[in-house]
Amino acid sequence: MKIGTIASHSALNIISGAKAEGFHTQLYCRPNRIPFYKSFGLEDSIVEVDSFEQILEMDLSDVVLIPHGSFVTYIGAQKLLNSDLRLFGNKELLRWEENRKLKSKLMVEAGFTVPKEYSSLGEINGPVIAKTHGAAGGRGYFVAKNTDWAKEKMNPSVDYILQEYIVGTKVFVTYFNSLTRNRTEVFSADIRYETDIDSSLRFNDEPTFTVIGNLPLVLRESILAEYFDMGVAFVEAFHRLCNQKIPGPFCIETVIDREQQIYTFEFSGRIVAGTNVWIPSSPYSYLQHGEPVWMGRRIAIEIRELIEQNQLDEVLK
Amino acid sequence: MKIGTIASHSALNIISGAKAEGFHTQLYCRPNRIPFYKSFGLEDSIVEVDSFEQILEMDLSDVVLIPHGSFVTYIGAQKLLNSDLRLFGNKELLRWEENRKLKSKLMVEAGFTVPKEYSSLGEINGPVIAKTHGAAGGRGYFVAKNTDWAKEKMNPSVDYILQEYIVGTKVFVTYFNSLTRNRTEVFSADIRYETDIDSSLRFNDEPTFTVIGNLPLVLRESILAEYFDMGVAFVEAFHRLCNQKIPGPFCIETVIDREQQIYTFEFSGRIVAGTNVWIPSSPYSYLQHGEPVWMGRRIAIEIRELIEQNQLDEVLK
Amino acid sequence: MKIGTIASHSALNIISGAKAEGFHTQLYCRPNRIPFYKSFGLEDSIVEVDSFEQILEMDLSDVVLIPHGSFVTYIGAQKLLNSDLRLFGNKELLRWEENRKLKSKLMVEAGFTVPKEYSSLGEINGPVIAKTHGAAGGRGYFVAKNTDWAKEKMNPSVDYILQEYIVGTKVFVTYFNSLTRNRTEVFSADIRYETDIDSSLRFNDEPTFTVIGNLPLVLRESILAEYFDMGVAFVEAFHRLCNQKIPGPFCIETVIDREQQIYTFEFSGRIVAGTNVWIPSSPYSYLQHGEPVWMGRRIAIEIRELIEQNQLDEVLK
Repeated sequence: MKIGTIASHSALNIISGAKAEGFHTQLYCRPNRIPFYKSFGLEDSIVEVDSFEQILEMDLSDVVLIPHGSFVTYIGAQKLLNSDLRLFGNKELLRWEENRKLKSKLMVEAGFTVPKEYSSLGEINGPVIAKTHGAAGGRGYFVAKNTDWAKEKMNPSVDYILQEYIVGTKVFVTYFNSLTRNRTEVFSADIRYETDIDSSLRFNDEPTFTVIGNLPLVLRESILAEYFDMGVAFVEAFHRLCNQKIPGPFCIETVIDREQQIYTFEFSGRIVAGTNVWIPSSPYSYLQHGEPVWMGRRIAIEIRELIEQNQLDEVLK
Repeated sequence: MKIGTIASHSALNIISGAKAEGFHTQLYCRPNRIPFYKSFGLEDSIVEVDSFEQILEMDLSDVVLIPHGSFVTYIGAQKLLNSDLRLFGNKELLRWEENRKLKSKLMVEAGFTVPKEYSSLGEINGPVIAKTHGAAGGRGYFVAKNTDWAKEKMNPSVDYILQEYIVGTKVFVTYFNSLTRNRTEVFSADIRYETDIDSSLRFNDEPTFTVIGNLPLVLRESILAEYFDMGVAFVEAFHRLCNQKIPGPFCIETVIDREQQIYTFEFSGRIVAGTNVWIPSSPYSYLQHGEPVWMGRRIAIEIRELIEQNQLDEVLK
Repeated sequence: MKIGTIASHSALNIISGAKAEGFHTQLYCRPNRIPFYKSFGLEDSIVEVDSFEQILEMDLSDVVLIPHGSFVTYIGAQKLLNSDLRLFGNKELLRWEENRKLKSKLMVEAGFTVPKEYSSLGEINGPVIAKTHGAAGGRGYFVAKNTDWAKEKMNPSVDYILQEYIVGTKVFVTYFNSLTRNRTEVFSADIRYETDIDSSLRFNDEPTFTVIGNLPLVLRESILAEYFDMGVAFVEAFHRLCNQKIPGPFCIETVIDREQQIYTFEFSGRIVAGTNVWIPSSPYSYLQHGEPVWMGRRIAIEIRELIEQNQLDEVLK
């Protein structure tokens, strides 16, 4: 059994973790990125492909694929769901994540406080963020202080999602749900570093939110405990709604306002790039495991344990 | 001899460090947080309590308690000082920390530059921060650019502490003062991540300063050397004033202004949550020890060495 | 063969790395900083000097010197270039770095997008940064939103370098170019933490840019791959222009704007202080080496391999 992924997003994290646990690995890599991945000593893992979609046509029956943020972008959720690929992650969760209404339903079921959604400008009372459908990395978003400001900024030909804008600190928390150990682990916290909202200086009032990278964050212990409860609640809510388990990593994306209220605005049902900041270990993973365990390695440990317990096939179906 | 603490603030840090050094541990934990601490593999350490105050009534004669920021909040300084608890840390320093005038006296004795305190609005010439007594996590603070602005913001029924507001970068530096090795070590630096002052966008001019977490920081080496000198000066100043030693961790809380002047506005005479960001090691602790040593482990190493040198009882009295 | 450096900037990083690889070390240290460096366990390495310039008169024929940012500041580029010191680093690159026109030529040859330079205010169309010659740590810089604003701020008696000011996120990427392994490695990314531009609050519009420290950053993997290509291009461009190799560390200093365009505004042909944040390892160095390798250790590994391959003398000449 090999572990594989496409060469983008968190592939270095995933492949190195699989190698550390002794797995054979496959990194599906486009020609222009081969020197980059080779510089990390991954030459033996590289399988050259012209486009990532090509993996849909390959025989990958002996490969556990670890999906990350580039899978949906480059291959598409529907093609992934229809494929025979053996994905480590819940395919039904991927469907809920892709659908805005289902996504919201799951967050509410988990008891999260979510920003209000508006169906028209008239309902807005306070700062608002306008998102465009399928925007990558926050491009095309804008924030307005109030209705008047929003009216000025809106492009009439664009169909926006209007959401309450929460003024507060960005906090992204990653979890690992272990089926073999029957527990939810808080893996790490991070902050997205975004252009040009995180510039030292800006001279206009329409910031962009394109993710450039991630910054490590450690949470106040009482707040971390709240996030732990949220992670557990998320797993349980999905089980209530779908009668299915969530294997492995997921992320809850939040803002904490001045009243210390946590608002959840998104989730990801798979590894996120924020975990890259915590290689070879986060404070939390180090305490849990007593040695350097980054997310890619955590995944590989779980897969090894699923194999030992003869549960892998059930998880991958 | 066991090492114990109450389950909050930096308990994960402390207990895991004690375990790494082979100590038996006790984590006094309220029922609702047991699943959280269990998820870090600490089930064997947990001693369930209904409230943290309960430890005052327990027989903890074989436990070295490591005080952290939640001790004073949940139990109270006076009760701690009057108790028979065997605290690793200087009780007299705790008293100085609790008393605003003594606190200021110690910082001045150490040669630190401190922000001016004003007794009335009339004295203010520049930005000012107004703090309320006993405010937790910066709640209720406000910053004003000048006297006029301050006048508008002040609630006449509140008794404020008015302090010069230093515009500059936040820098929190943690130290470990080792009695067995007779040296002061710089342990780490960090930045507090605060709501909603650290929001990407804010639409009002009354930010809040509630600590949400901490960010890792490494200082310019020449500035780090200045902070080292400050740490040594702090230990010496306390010795001059009280003829006592400071065992273990303390933190100096500063802002560096545009002239590179370091202003000290607070200190903590015990472990601070900022050290949580540096698990399993900070750059500085790694260089000092040549292996992963986080603050909880550093404390446990010191306690072991104090036991070996028959000095522990003297330190704990 | 010993490894040495002057006691400032990244000396802790360099000396500890050399010791970890088994080298004898020399740390040229002024008297007032001896207690600081001793607190890191470096007493055996310290060679006391009254001023760093003194090393020009010492017999250091058995020492490989690792130059860092304080060498030029305290000793001067010309004196270094004229000396017999055995510097690990390319002296010709040091000359190009010191000369503003050569510096720019190299960045353009490498294919980097660089901010426009203006020779007069009249050419300015947008935000501008005005730098003064030889300014240390960004002191004396200012930023103006447009020409009118710039006019107001300029001191007529100062000769400014006027440069397009790019609104975007700061990104500093460090590389290690290995001659023995014939590859360019991305070592790490960081963000400079600067006074008082990185203050939470400012009440004037003339921020300062004095570097206080560094913050760890991990880049989006696709952006990291772009930076990898830039590092390779930099090494190749220097080879085309000078027919010489770059041994060891260098840094490319950039801003990413809202269109995700990377602008390069500086480079350093030696270790930078930003690598201090990644002790004992960065995510990237950990993946490359499978164990904790910080920059000082990476340098020492290369020197050992150069000795084994009888290439060291050629590199140091």
